[in-house]
Amino acid sequence: MAARDKFHNAVKLGLEKEKWRITHDPLKLEYAVDERVEIDLGAERILGAEKAEEKIAVEVKSFLNDSALADFHTALGQFLNYRLVLEEIEPERTLYLAVPIAAYKSFFQRELAKASVKKYEVKIIVYEPVKEEIVLWIN
Amino acid sequence: MAARDKFHNAVKLGLEKEKWRITHDPLKLEYAVDERVEIDLGAERILGAEKAEEKIAVEVKSFLNDSALADFHTALGQFLNYRLVLEEIEPERTLYLAVPIAAYKSFFQRELAKASVKKYEVKIIVYEPVKEEIVLWIN
Repeated sequence: MAARDKFHNAVKLGLEKEKWRITHDPLKLEYAVDERVEIDLGAERILGAEKAEEKIAVEVKSFLNDSALADFHTALGQFLNYRLVLEEIEPERTLYLAVPIAAYKSFFQRELAKASVKKYEVKIIVYEPVKEEIVLWIN
Repeated sequence: MAARDKFHNAVKLGLEKEKWRITHDPLKLEYAVDERVEIDLGAERILGAEKAEEKIAVEVKSFLNDSALADFHTALGQFLNYRLVLEEIEPERTLYLAVPIAAYKSFFQRELAKASVKKYEVKIIVYEPVKEEIVLWIN
């Protein structure tokens, strides 16, 4: 299994351990009526999950590339565009960015990352990819 | 010369034709005092330019990849992080995203792109890469 898929599955299993029901894998996002725009990019799949009355969408990131900063730029752009679409088509579903614990403990403690997450109101799920567990929810 | 450099130079020359003085190539952005964070990523250089009292920073994008949507996600994330840093260290300098006319006429006319540019207040310079001219400023 590709590393990226392992990380995706770790988040999925982690959510299930916390009693979330995975309803979409992938959750497809489409914007506009007259032109079909597939936001799901294949490589980076989004999960849809539900628990009680709560609905979430989870953009799973591995942060496996050499440059965490480059990964973060892309993750942020995707997150904000996905959220834009969700607010339009399914405003009751909350979008989270899932980040592995190693990236959270290093890159996400840097000033730029902290300032950016705060400014753009990025909600984060921190996960442990080997134990396949959710470690932290940051709203 | 690599295609990316040609596009970068086209914007530079286009700005000079409009009487902008290029003051930085690249314009280096650093965030935080105690930890040096180089925002400039090498491959995607930012220009700094001045005309009269006005100062701008220009993130030049080629949109040469197969997926304009993927290019846009990354461009948006970079733009918003660069702007965050600029607001902190040099708030009088306005950041623009430079987009080639072909991408502007196609991808940027799609609903998602239009909504995203509006929502995140992305200022755009449209340029013509062969004639090396600035075609349009969108504030």
